[in-house]
Amino acid sequence: MDDVDFLISPIGWVESPLIRRGDAPKQADEGAPMARIVIRPELESALRGLRAGTPVLVLTWLHEARRDVLAVHPRKDPDRPLTGVFATRSPDRPNPIGLHATVVERMERSAVWVRNLEAIDGTPVIDIKPVLGDIHER
Amino acid sequence: MDDVDFLISPIGWVESPLIRRGDAPKQADEGAPMARIVIRPELESALRGLRAGTPVLVLTWLHEARRDVLAVHPRKDPDRPLTGVFATRSPDRPNPIGLHATVVERMERSAVWVRNLEAIDGTPVIDIKPVLGDIHER
Repeated sequence: MDDVDFLISPIGWVESPLIRRGDAPKQADEGAPMARIVIRPELESALRGLRAGTPVLVLTWLHEARRDVLAVHPRKDPDRPLTGVFATRSPDRPNPIGLHATVVERMERSAVWVRNLEAIDGTPVIDIKPVLGDIHER
Repeated sequence: MDDVDFLISPIGWVESPLIRRGDAPKQADEGAPMARIVIRPELESALRGLRAGTPVLVLTWLHEARRDVLAVHPRKDPDRPLTGVFATRSPDRPNPIGLHATVVERMERSAVWVRNLEAIDGTPVIDIKPVLGDIHER
């Protein structure tokens, strides 16, 4: 471990009917199911204030991604020019963090149901952030 | 290291006139300067396709944040109710990942200038993602 590296501990995991990477749509608005995010019980108090209808960003760790890929043909289309992964949303990238804009559907004590999550069952969740409204709502 | 933990290696670092945490605005649209993101030379090819004017999301590791804070008074205002960090954008959170919506101002071979970055000098950068347009642009 390089002295500039950081350790991420999942805050929870995705439960979803999407089982294999090939099942997941490329983006959530292309058809993704409801999912349950099970949060570590010791982090329960960090959920306080989230409620049904809250727009959130869910950050995941795309644990099946390759970290040594630096350029791809977008959407695996060989007719599209080779593009650096920082200019694409490819899951294969040096730090395979997935970013999912969604809405809280329902809260449990230590779980969050969200709409349209394009992440497979078992995907580690590393953060949940509210979408910011205008300055007065902060 | 727990067997479910992950190691993040920065892809680069922020160069900014913001030096101390207290100097950074809470959010970029509250006044943040131009910043230069210096990318590790070995990741240069991952920048291919980014250009001036590209809207991007910059993910940072907020290295001065506390990871043991689970609830806060939003914007440190004691009159606001104690709120779980997953319902706030507090930098103090279990995995202190910063998410910054910005626009590429200028590209260098292994550096990216971006507008309005509310991150202090030396902040590790862990990913850059384009903002998605509509389905036809993907």
